Amino acid sequence: MIVAMQDNASTEQIVNVIERMESLGFNVHRTTGETQTILAGVGTPSHFEVTEFQVLPGVQQAYRISSPYKLAGRGFRPEGTRITFPNGVVVGGEEIVVMAGPCSVESREQIMLSAKQVAAAGGQFLRGGAYKPRSSPYSFQGMGVEGLKLMREAADEHGLLVITEVMEISQIETMLPYIDCFQVGARNMQNFNLLRELGKVRKPVLMKRGIAATIEETLLSAEYVLSGGNYDLMLCERGIRTYETATRNTMDISAIPVLKKLTHLPVFGDPSHGVGIRAFVPPMALAAVAAGADGLLMEMHPNPDKAMSDGAQSLTPEQLNELVAKLRQLAPVVDRSVAPAVQPVHV
Amino acid sequence: MIVAMQDNASTEQIVNVIERMESLGFNVHRTTGETQTILAGVGTPSHFEVTEFQVLPGVQQAYRISSPYKLAGRGFRPEGTRITFPNGVVVGGEEIVVMAGPCSVESREQIMLSAKQVAAAGGQFLRGGAYKPRSSPYSFQGMGVEGLKLMREAADEHGLLVITEVMEISQIETMLPYIDCFQVGARNMQNFNLLRELGKVRKPVLMKRGIAATIEETLLSAEYVLSGGNYDLMLCERGIRTYETATRNTMDISAIPVLKKLTHLPVFGDPSHGVGIRAFVPPMALAAVAAGADGLLMEMHPNPDKAMSDGAQSLTPEQLNELVAKLRQLAPVVDRSVAPAVQPVHV
Amino acid sequence: MIVAMQDNASTEQIVNVIERMESLGFNVHRTTGETQTILAGVGTPSHFEVTEFQVLPGVQQAYRISSPYKLAGRGFRPEGTRITFPNGVVVGGEEIVVMAGPCSVESREQIMLSAKQVAAAGGQFLRGGAYKPRSSPYSFQGMGVEGLKLMREAADEHGLLVITEVMEISQIETMLPYIDCFQVGARNMQNFNLLRELGKVRKPVLMKRGIAATIEETLLSAEYVLSGGNYDLMLCERGIRTYETATRNTMDISAIPVLKKLTHLPVFGDPSHGVGIRAFVPPMALAAVAAGADGLLMEMHPNPDKAMSDGAQSLTPEQLNELVAKLRQLAPVVDRSVAPAVQPVHV
Amino acid sequence: MIVAMQDNASTEQIVNVIERMESLGFNVHRTTGETQTILAGVGTPSHFEVTEFQVLPGVQQAYRISSPYKLAGRGFRPEGTRITFPNGVVVGGEEIVVMAGPCSVESREQIMLSAKQVAAAGGQFLRGGAYKPRSSPYSFQGMGVEGLKLMREAADEHGLLVITEVMEISQIETMLPYIDCFQVGARNMQNFNLLRELGKVRKPVLMKRGIAATIEETLLSAEYVLSGGNYDLMLCERGIRTYETATRNTMDISAIPVLKKLTHLPVFGDPSHGVGIRAFVPPMALAAVAAGADGLLMEMHPNPDKAMSDGAQSLTPEQLNELVAKLRQLAPVVDRSVAPAVQPVHV
Repeated sequence: MIVAMQDNASTEQIVNVIERMESLGFNVHRTTGETQTILAGVGTPSHFEVTEFQVLPGVQQAYRISSPYKLAGRGFRPEGTRITFPNGVVVGGEEIVVMAGPCSVESREQIMLSAKQVAAAGGQFLRGGAYKPRSSPYSFQGMGVEGLKLMREAADEHGLLVITEVMEISQIETMLPYIDCFQVGARNMQNFNLLRELGKVRKPVLMKRGIAATIEETLLSAEYVLSGGNYDLMLCERGIRTYETATRNTMDISAIPVLKKLTHLPVFGDPSHGVGIRAFVPPMALAAVAAGADGLLMEMHPNPDKAMSDGAQSLTPEQLNELVAKLRQLAPVVDRSVAPAVQPVHV
Repeated sequence: MIVAMQDNASTEQIVNVIERMESLGFNVHRTTGETQTILAGVGTPSHFEVTEFQVLPGVQQAYRISSPYKLAGRGFRPEGTRITFPNGVVVGGEEIVVMAGPCSVESREQIMLSAKQVAAAGGQFLRGGAYKPRSSPYSFQGMGVEGLKLMREAADEHGLLVITEVMEISQIETMLPYIDCFQVGARNMQNFNLLRELGKVRKPVLMKRGIAATIEETLLSAEYVLSGGNYDLMLCERGIRTYETATRNTMDISAIPVLKKLTHLPVFGDPSHGVGIRAFVPPMALAAVAAGADGLLMEMHPNPDKAMSDGAQSLTPEQLNELVAKLRQLAPVVDRSVAPAVQPVHV
Repeated sequence: MIVAMQDNASTEQIVNVIERMESLGFNVHRTTGETQTILAGVGTPSHFEVTEFQVLPGVQQAYRISSPYKLAGRGFRPEGTRITFPNGVVVGGEEIVVMAGPCSVESREQIMLSAKQVAAAGGQFLRGGAYKPRSSPYSFQGMGVEGLKLMREAADEHGLLVITEVMEISQIETMLPYIDCFQVGARNMQNFNLLRELGKVRKPVLMKRGIAATIEETLLSAEYVLSGGNYDLMLCERGIRTYETATRNTMDISAIPVLKKLTHLPVFGDPSHGVGIRAFVPPMALAAVAAGADGLLMEMHPNPDKAMSDGAQSLTPEQLNELVAKLRQLAPVVDRSVAPAVQPVHV
Repeated sequence: MIVAMQDNASTEQIVNVIERMESLGFNVHRTTGETQTILAGVGTPSHFEVTEFQVLPGVQQAYRISSPYKLAGRGFRPEGTRITFPNGVVVGGEEIVVMAGPCSVESREQIMLSAKQVAAAGGQFLRGGAYKPRSSPYSFQGMGVEGLKLMREAADEHGLLVITEVMEISQIETMLPYIDCFQVGARNMQNFNLLRELGKVRKPVLMKRGIAATIEETLLSAEYVLSGGNYDLMLCERGIRTYETATRNTMDISAIPVLKKLTHLPVFGDPSHGVGIRAFVPPMALAAVAAGADGLLMEMHPNPDKAMSDGAQSLTPEQLNELVAKLRQLAPVVDRSVAPAVQPVHV
């Protein structure tokens, strides 16, 4: 930490700051200029609040130097995290992974058809919501455990993996038998109790960036999962809230290369929530991969116009097909390839 | 709902939209201009997604007319909601209510002293965190149930009410015996499972606006609590996230009069989180009341420089004293008064 | 400036940074910790870009310590700037000043009536636009010099001062004979050529904060005017752009106390543009004064429903009357008073 | 326009709204539901303010249906605008165009070398600032007309075109002999007088989106240039201001496909200002083209560490080389190609 004192800071004020820094475990070096004193604290206390120094008497500004996360930092695992799934799919390696499916599981027929279409297009994961966080209590809230069972069945028929959102600690146990990957939604990125519990689970987690979360906060939330002992974590940029209303959110494509530099965790892009309008999902999917994403999470519905939720942003099966074909062309430009189509488990 | 068709919309496209509107329960009136057709849907279906109409073929734009919340709307209770607490304090009436106390309960001594100082300054509620949502897993996470007991004891000694944050469904039962009011923090404003459970409780709830929540989303979240049957709900503006970094958040003072117009629920202001810097809390507290707030929620610590969390934004006891005195002067300007100081329960 | 080097920074990298700092005029002190080196540069070079240090090899982070503005800083004139106008009105002193009038000058009758109403309500300045910056080229663009003449006549009849917006360097000369104060609109807050020219003028300037300007950028723009030699400058918070759409902008009330601390320049609030909806202007005007504003700039129209621009946010004359009466009650709470009503010049 | 009346609107209120709509030239159709009346105005008045209807008594909400811009809309020229430059380079066609060069012209040697490197990398335009808008009055402000001459000479030596920023009406005439394309910077996107003058010029203009401008406002500003008669206009996304501070701005990549749908004008991306950090420029440049950009505008400096401005975001010549090579690989994925390298004019 560095503390720059005001020009007119008294000796008493300076000493007070030094003592507080030392009490936290910092080794303090003092630089005295003609008018200003600068205090450099070296060492790494387990935790401190830089804002508290900013309001101490005589302080002009205080800066945290060390990043507040440790396990999530790139330096912890410079070669990058790779997660291997039961069917051999690897996330975080050279191959780009495609996760697709409907916003909500609506019926057996719908999810069976969705899985078929995702597999045919070349995806590796079937996504779908069984428990739905909805802004309005009057919206469709999901099929619950019945939805989980249907997803598992549909995915297995085509060799796909299952990813679905967990909203609540009590759902973790229920979900475990049916899924391959937990998804933490944007609204729960700072539900720290949930994150802590997911840190104890031995199943991979994909955590979405919150709608107003900074990149640093996203990595601090990741730290909750990692520090619990679960290192199989993926991050996902899905659009942030800005003043622009032409799109549902503003997809922060630059967060992808920034995260890839700061952390060893795989980074996905979710263009469906990023823009919220079907026609703009394919260009944004291409943009995400061009910028370095390790995979894509997208909504696709056999008949988007009849979807019970998020129909406006769901791709048609034809669009998904075309998009994956384009991704196969694009991947080599960024020295990647798209993961191969999966094979049915039970044949 | 209103749907404006594109200039070149075909009859088939128009008929398709009409059929979808009717299937939702709308009674559709069609206006045909020289080049453009406008479809007005009257009636109030329980729920629909206006975005789904926006991507239908031939549609230029679709507008929801009715507000998506019902119970939270001002029309539901035009005279406004008043909540009467055990010691006779009324929120939502003519009197402005002051809630103050430390960010976290840190020790018996600290919370006993805090309660004394809050009561002396003229506050009605003791606030304090027993369970703390912290961005970093390495920060102090609260004293838990021990903190609840200490808060109850401290509050009772001075006749104060207790408000504290609930982060998790499982904490509700634990908290019930010790508190007078649940607080839902900004990070949980869209934790819908938690809100639903709080709708079943018979204790008042103060729900903070999320850091990136629109006013409409705030009212939709309120709807989760209200529709569960708990009508003793208060809202609280505590700053939103913007590009400005001179303050911790940007306190949206205008949300106060806007909410007072849209809803019957009492509206509080939290200038501590709103600005995050002690020196700016008093002017923002005055501004909130000048703009129509029904009360204030503020952090005060016996010794802010030693606080374990949020010290930078905590008032000193002297500042709280002076502020409440100013509030007593200000309240009549907006045809209000400040609630009288409380009396000890056990004398 | 402070530069924190990365843990693994080489001697060559450190030396390179030191040399660049010294070449700018910094006297560099080096603190070597166990793993990290910190370089503190003392001294005040006339200008440097801290971002350039942030990308030098081996640098972890670089911080500017000194504020990048000088003349605008509170320290330059700790007692605060007071501006005395021809009719004796003082801005920046104990009295709160009210500027009101229509968005645009529309006709002789309209502006004469407006001036009468502003004076009757107790305002000191007549505002009104002669040159209008409009988002659409198809909107009404103002009456030009004819509008200036009408404003002067109307103001003089009631002893009011004239404030109006300057959009363009070539308008400065034209305006000088008719006005008492230039207004720089939010869209021109970073029109540096215009600001530079206004620095050479000997008439006061009120500069609005840009719709996406930080407080620091606002003060840097002020520096353009001040460094040209014009010290009669006022700032004005008029709402910033955020994700919230319930109001036209989000009025950053906290910018008022923050600016009052950082700068000696008087600070106004413009609640009309801040919220954009007539009903919310009075509570926000009260909030601005409660938070420390030195004055208010507001739109009022004799018949807002017939206004050629900004009618939705213009107060009626009755509303202005009531508001000024409330302000007279409120001002003493913050140790201020409202400036007295003006007297006609020509009687 | 559509006006939805409140449930309890009186006949008088309804009639009042109808009369105002008719007075603007709308043909009004009235739909009367059980409780609510909806008024659909068909026709296209030259201009009206929808906000004024929103505050009329009895009105619940008013919606503009028609887009407020006309000449900028895709429908005006469905096939898209193509701009042919003197040396045969076409913008807006199948080929992607690269504009690169230093932020500021600093010396003859620097700009000559820059031009050589841009041409060698395969760029078509030399960019560089002769007049610089700088946040601080103490920063380097550009070489002025001398810089223009140097740019022309440098560009001609390698067959490049010249694009440079115009900040001020008086600079237009000065610039005309030396440049091929005017650039309007983000800070001037709503400098309507400047835009109007550029509408009268017969040289192409590239207009950047403002840092807080919506897509609709960007198109309205475009309308100022187009309605003046200059149809050779390009737009450029260069990052918007959000709460995220890890990057200089948040580059709104989705604005590219959205603009391509809404307007016939060519759309560029400027990743240098979009992210502000050299290392992230190449991935964002690829992302912009993957999302549909017609070209790129980027900062490159022969020695970025010594640049007088924007060094942190300037590519090295080697980076530009590699990037253009990658762009050549990427372009076919989106059915495009990169424009061929230019040839010297004077050989």
